[in-house]
Amino acid sequence: MSKSKAVVLVSGGMDSCVTTAIAAQEYELVFLHLNYGQRTEKRELQAFNDIADHYGVTQKLVVDVQFLKEIGGSSLTDRRIEVSKADLETIEIPTSYVPFRNGNILSIAASWAEVIGATKIFVGAVEEDSSGYPDCRHTFFAAFQQAVNLGTKPDTTIEIITPLIHLTKAEIIKEGLRLKAPLEKTWSCYQSEDLACGVCDSCALRLQGFQLAGLEDPIEYKVRPRYTRV
Amino acid sequence: MSKSKAVVLVSGGMDSCVTTAIAAQEYELVFLHLNYGQRTEKRELQAFNDIADHYGVTQKLVVDVQFLKEIGGSSLTDRRIEVSKADLETIEIPTSYVPFRNGNILSIAASWAEVIGATKIFVGAVEEDSSGYPDCRHTFFAAFQQAVNLGTKPDTTIEIITPLIHLTKAEIIKEGLRLKAPLEKTWSCYQSEDLACGVCDSCALRLQGFQLAGLEDPIEYKVRPRYTRV
Repeated sequence: MSKSKAVVLVSGGMDSCVTTAIAAQEYELVFLHLNYGQRTEKRELQAFNDIADHYGVTQKLVVDVQFLKEIGGSSLTDRRIEVSKADLETIEIPTSYVPFRNGNILSIAASWAEVIGATKIFVGAVEEDSSGYPDCRHTFFAAFQQAVNLGTKPDTTIEIITPLIHLTKAEIIKEGLRLKAPLEKTWSCYQSEDLACGVCDSCALRLQGFQLAGLEDPIEYKVRPRYTRV
Repeated sequence: MSKSKAVVLVSGGMDSCVTTAIAAQEYELVFLHLNYGQRTEKRELQAFNDIADHYGVTQKLVVDVQFLKEIGGSSLTDRRIEVSKADLETIEIPTSYVPFRNGNILSIAASWAEVIGATKIFVGAVEEDSSGYPDCRHTFFAAFQQAVNLGTKPDTTIEIITPLIHLTKAEIIKEGLRLKAPLEKTWSCYQSEDLACGVCDSCALRLQGFQLAGLEDPIEYKVRPRYTRV
């Protein structure tokens, strides 16, 4: 029997790479990536393609959602808003929050999954470690699952799977190493495309994760602060 | 006190026009329109702008979601799939169904509403008369409302309002006339852009609605069959 098909949302970051490694154990993978005018669009797309090559994924959909940039409201897409320096102690929503981004991403994934007959959508969202984005929480995904169930054809079954949702960054990294995920091919920095900045939220969470896991991040940084809390 | 802001999804069809008339009674309107590579994209956009002019709406967002065409699966966006001739007797989902379209539309609307501080999203979806699209049912909108509540910032309040959801086409037309909605500026046909075809699902529902309401549709048709059932 042939494997059933799973859409994996691959931003090119570490979480989506480890999610891919998990999904690859059981499903035939197809990859979805979004360009939304984020600062590091080109670098993320390269990481997406590198991860696809690594896993031999050929069915890929890259969707241009420039409207998220037009709509604005986020430092990731609006250069007038400064990217927050990481502040891992507070729970305030950082300026990099793109309003309802995951709603948009999941809607596109659901449309595609319904057309190609994929039965799963894998998303590498992380609740505890997610910088406080409201659309990264388990409760949001559960509600969206219900909307997908009701908003697609009666004979369509699409399950949204978030295998990392309750893991810490350190646990994700360990899981990635266990599954031989190509973490060296991933890109996390929100700020720059040549060398990771080391100081944006995303770099900070990544570096802290490696440091808590007692491991060395294989990619290069402009600066590599220590973020580990006691 | 200034009126609070409402995003109205305006396709350019009759339902969205009547929805606009309802929303205009109470809110400051901003208009959202989607181009998704549908056959009648240009004509619908013209209707959108005509309705905006009629109501003096200046804050407009036209979003290009060509990915719905790339994803395919619908006769509205894929010219290899024939537009169904209307069959108002069966409950089969017609070929014009765009997979999870309303999930995509509502996600965009929610992102925009959150950024501009709009508190309502008006959608002219119709359940009974909706040709059986799964994403036009009240239960779908209720589930999506929950996803929006959970996937936006804690201090964001966005209510999805579907004022036509339980009306028939004939009731919508009467409501439109009562509120002096400019129905002559709307476009419903899925098939052609010069004269409405009169035979696609959308034309059939519209014509049947006028006929059941005992009224004359102000727009021109290539053919104008009688659809009224006894």
